[in-house]
Amino acid sequence: MKKTITLAQGNGGAENHALIKEIFWRHLGNEILDRGEDAAVLEALERPAFTTDSFTISPLFFPGGDIGKLSVCGTCNDLAMMGAQPRYLSLSVVIEEGFELRMLEKIVRSIKKELPHNDALIVSGDTKVVPRGTVDGLFITTSGIGERRCEGIGISQIQPGDAIVVSRDIGRHGAAIFAAREGMELESALESDCASLWPQVASLLEAGIKPHALRDATRGGLAAVLNEWAEANNLCIEVEEEEIPVSNEVRGICELLGFEPAFLANEGTFVLALDPADVPLALEILEAFPGGEEAMRIGEVKGDYPGKVVLNSPWGTRRFLDWPTGELLPRIC
Amino acid sequence: MKKTITLAQGNGGAENHALIKEIFWRHLGNEILDRGEDAAVLEALERPAFTTDSFTISPLFFPGGDIGKLSVCGTCNDLAMMGAQPRYLSLSVVIEEGFELRMLEKIVRSIKKELPHNDALIVSGDTKVVPRGTVDGLFITTSGIGERRCEGIGISQIQPGDAIVVSRDIGRHGAAIFAAREGMELESALESDCASLWPQVASLLEAGIKPHALRDATRGGLAAVLNEWAEANNLCIEVEEEEIPVSNEVRGICELLGFEPAFLANEGTFVLALDPADVPLALEILEAFPGGEEAMRIGEVKGDYPGKVVLNSPWGTRRFLDWPTGELLPRIC
Repeated sequence: MKKTITLAQGNGGAENHALIKEIFWRHLGNEILDRGEDAAVLEALERPAFTTDSFTISPLFFPGGDIGKLSVCGTCNDLAMMGAQPRYLSLSVVIEEGFELRMLEKIVRSIKKELPHNDALIVSGDTKVVPRGTVDGLFITTSGIGERRCEGIGISQIQPGDAIVVSRDIGRHGAAIFAAREGMELESALESDCASLWPQVASLLEAGIKPHALRDATRGGLAAVLNEWAEANNLCIEVEEEEIPVSNEVRGICELLGFEPAFLANEGTFVLALDPADVPLALEILEAFPGGEEAMRIGEVKGDYPGKVVLNSPWGTRRFLDWPTGELLPRIC
Repeated sequence: MKKTITLAQGNGGAENHALIKEIFWRHLGNEILDRGEDAAVLEALERPAFTTDSFTISPLFFPGGDIGKLSVCGTCNDLAMMGAQPRYLSLSVVIEEGFELRMLEKIVRSIKKELPHNDALIVSGDTKVVPRGTVDGLFITTSGIGERRCEGIGISQIQPGDAIVVSRDIGRHGAAIFAAREGMELESALESDCASLWPQVASLLEAGIKPHALRDATRGGLAAVLNEWAEANNLCIEVEEEEIPVSNEVRGICELLGFEPAFLANEGTFVLALDPADVPLALEILEAFPGGEEAMRIGEVKGDYPGKVVLNSPWGTRRFLDWPTGELLPRIC
């Protein structure tokens, strides 16, 4: 096999078949995928959840992860946020002619490595190769099916009086990608928070906590999640600015560049709306996970501005935390 | 809203949210999608099938369809080929900055129009906008979940003595895309066969026919399907060359350019391996569908070359029909 991807490897013929076998099936094979059918035959699903995400991140490899790991985490996390245990994933890859084969293999290995954290399998896939210049490197789309382990988690379940918790310090993914893209040399090892969140969610559910809503704070960051929740329910959410956990590295990049940490993307950080009585146990559980020692109760569903998010400063002033707008960072995920 | 897509519309913030609401939710909305959760909550699935496909076709609009229609047909057909009724689709779109909004809306309308042929819903989606030059126009990835209405359809079920049938004349999609791309003015109205195949499969199953294997002859065409079947089972498939239905328009393009019709892609044509006793009824059923008057029994699982496909010419000579190789037509689907 050549060292770079050729158009022939996307032809539906011999070379395409060989690529699929030697890269994808070899690393990701399992009883279902190995059947090589057009569609994977699955066992009965009692309470399925279903989601999809495309990944166009640049650079493909970044501190704390790569597009392969990200594509598994991103899709599995969307399932976890509905209280669903990830089970089956599909993997669709669009590759630019000339892409290095060893890079592709490295990405596929990352996918393989991340799957067990979710107890998930790749059961269906597609590979397209497009001519040089029609895609930048490689894009991945992963869809996922999970089994809901807890009913009634959802935006509409958020109630006045709910506590708002974040699972760790925010903004790492956005700041790390920005730094990597700009070739910034940082003194500290700032890494993306990119991680699978099902283990955290499973632990919360096992402990008997029933969150009202969960959401990973990806594109648009914490601000997008809170605004979506406030707007959808026409409720006000009040957040204490000084309670929002932000690492020194992320704060430094934000101050340097004039970013708002709450607008930065995360890929392994989630927001919880839950009964205030559940907060102490939830924090205790979250603390056992990487970065979880920064888990914080940051606010509450209350206040005088329905549909809006209010930020209370430590000096007693208040302002709206609006939806992020503008270009922010393209290709952050 | 501007007339062309902006990077801000992929930011995860206000503009992104507005695009999703005004284009995707407006046209494709349903009870499940409208909940706006990270993952769609579905009812129990007794015998699920799951598949994915990315679509990178150029041009986006072609005689007989567009990338929107194609993305629904392609994914639903993969389900239908496993005897599964399409139910739930996800829709992930990567859009180039500057893409025309009215084109996007036209594509979304096509998606909407094709869904009822499969009785399917879009229940989950993702929208990414990437900077100019990092994707050529728009790529779509659709994944699908179906319910199997018939067990035991699959490559491994193919047996010696099985009849091989094609559902209509072959090569239309490949020939139509080639002609469109080269700006060829054809006297006749050559159109892609792009169509949803679940209605045909449902009719076959309802009539009590249990095919051993079904496969839509997409990239790599008829040749790829037959070679995959022969190779996977280490069986020989013999095909009568003169029985393969090819329209005059497609034959004309093939002769002009030195293509093999059996290598050309199809997007609404499938191959059946079934009990020879079922062939007359299967042909009668297929004839009722567009192009189905050309449905033909073209060969049989028999012969002396395990793992190979043999083509018998009308003059008594025989040759192997090999896997397609080389670049063929990039971005055919």
